[in-house]
Amino acid sequence: MQYFPPALEALVEQFARLPGVGTKSAQRLAFYVLSLTEDEAANFSHAITQAKKTIRCCPVCQNLTQGEGPCSICASSRRDSSTICVVAEPKDVIAMERSREYNGLYHVLHGVISPMNHVGPDDLHIKSLVERVSSGAVSEVIMATNPDTEGEATAMYLSRLLKPFQVKVTRLAYGIPVGSHLEFADDATLMRALEGRREM
Amino acid sequence: MQYFPPALEALVEQFARLPGVGTKSAQRLAFYVLSLTEDEAANFSHAITQAKKTIRCCPVCQNLTQGEGPCSICASSRRDSSTICVVAEPKDVIAMERSREYNGLYHVLHGVISPMNHVGPDDLHIKSLVERVSSGAVSEVIMATNPDTEGEATAMYLSRLLKPFQVKVTRLAYGIPVGSHLEFADDATLMRALEGRREM
Repeated sequence: MQYFPPALEALVEQFARLPGVGTKSAQRLAFYVLSLTEDEAANFSHAITQAKKTIRCCPVCQNLTQGEGPCSICASSRRDSSTICVVAEPKDVIAMERSREYNGLYHVLHGVISPMNHVGPDDLHIKSLVERVSSGAVSEVIMATNPDTEGEATAMYLSRLLKPFQVKVTRLAYGIPVGSHLEFADDATLMRALEGRREM
Repeated sequence: MQYFPPALEALVEQFARLPGVGTKSAQRLAFYVLSLTEDEAANFSHAITQAKKTIRCCPVCQNLTQGEGPCSICASSRRDSSTICVVAEPKDVIAMERSREYNGLYHVLHGVISPMNHVGPDDLHIKSLVERVSSGAVSEVIMATNPDTEGEATAMYLSRLLKPFQVKVTRLAYGIPVGSHLEFADDATLMRALEGRREM
């Protein structure tokens, strides 16, 4: 039985498709939309179609961008174009940029190799990475995939793939996170932190 | 600093306004929209504007409805029009309908009296309820607001307001929920269950 009017039912259904949103939350969100003014609802609706229409991948680094040509990072002359940082997702670029420490370029794979989810190397933007590295202008590739099994495996796969091009391939350091407590660090992290210890 | 393209940033912002959605969730939802096909995104966007445009309150019971005139429940000839069930929100109508036990009409207040949130009787659809009851065709009004302080106070307020019209005003029974365990029932509920005990 259906007791919501069809248009409301349709909106609940759309919200319920979002990841992490159940039927109850979808209803709450739909009621929220009804509580908006016409203009606010129109803005929300417009933001969805606009994002979908205008956002594309940068032809160089595959990060998300808007408008024609390469993204602002690839196009910037103040960036060190001899270094490429390889990340899994566009949001990882944001995380790296937040550190304000990195000044090179990026390459976004849009996923990691994951046989369990049927994602192989051909499903990722690996070919374009190899092309960029093979052009000869790159001296270092930093693997910044997540420190989990799939991220590790992807980094390992890429480092082997890039070896023939005589390029330096590095991996982000493992260790105890800044501001954390030793007692809460897991064994694997502590082991890696010991391994990677540096002179003071 | 902003590293997402403006259209994506705008979409994240829209999602972040939804109740219970933080910045991280909003980003996840925005990325989900990008992963949709053009058609799917257009449908989502359309559902928002359509719901906002076409959903209105039934002029009789104030429940949400679509199209002209009274809602399907108010318009139905199979419903017992001498009984009105007063609920706080449209979703409470759905809960009541799910029980398949009630065959009367509804009245949706769109809120409860809540001095803490600056909601007084004038902010609710109380005047139209009084008009319906004063017409004389109603023999019973069932108060089905939530069994919390504000729902209680609203039910109490309404029952006093409707007393002059010689109408029977009832309240949903309190007691232990079906399928629950006595040991987990709170004191107040057990007390009400004892008070309301019935002969077998």
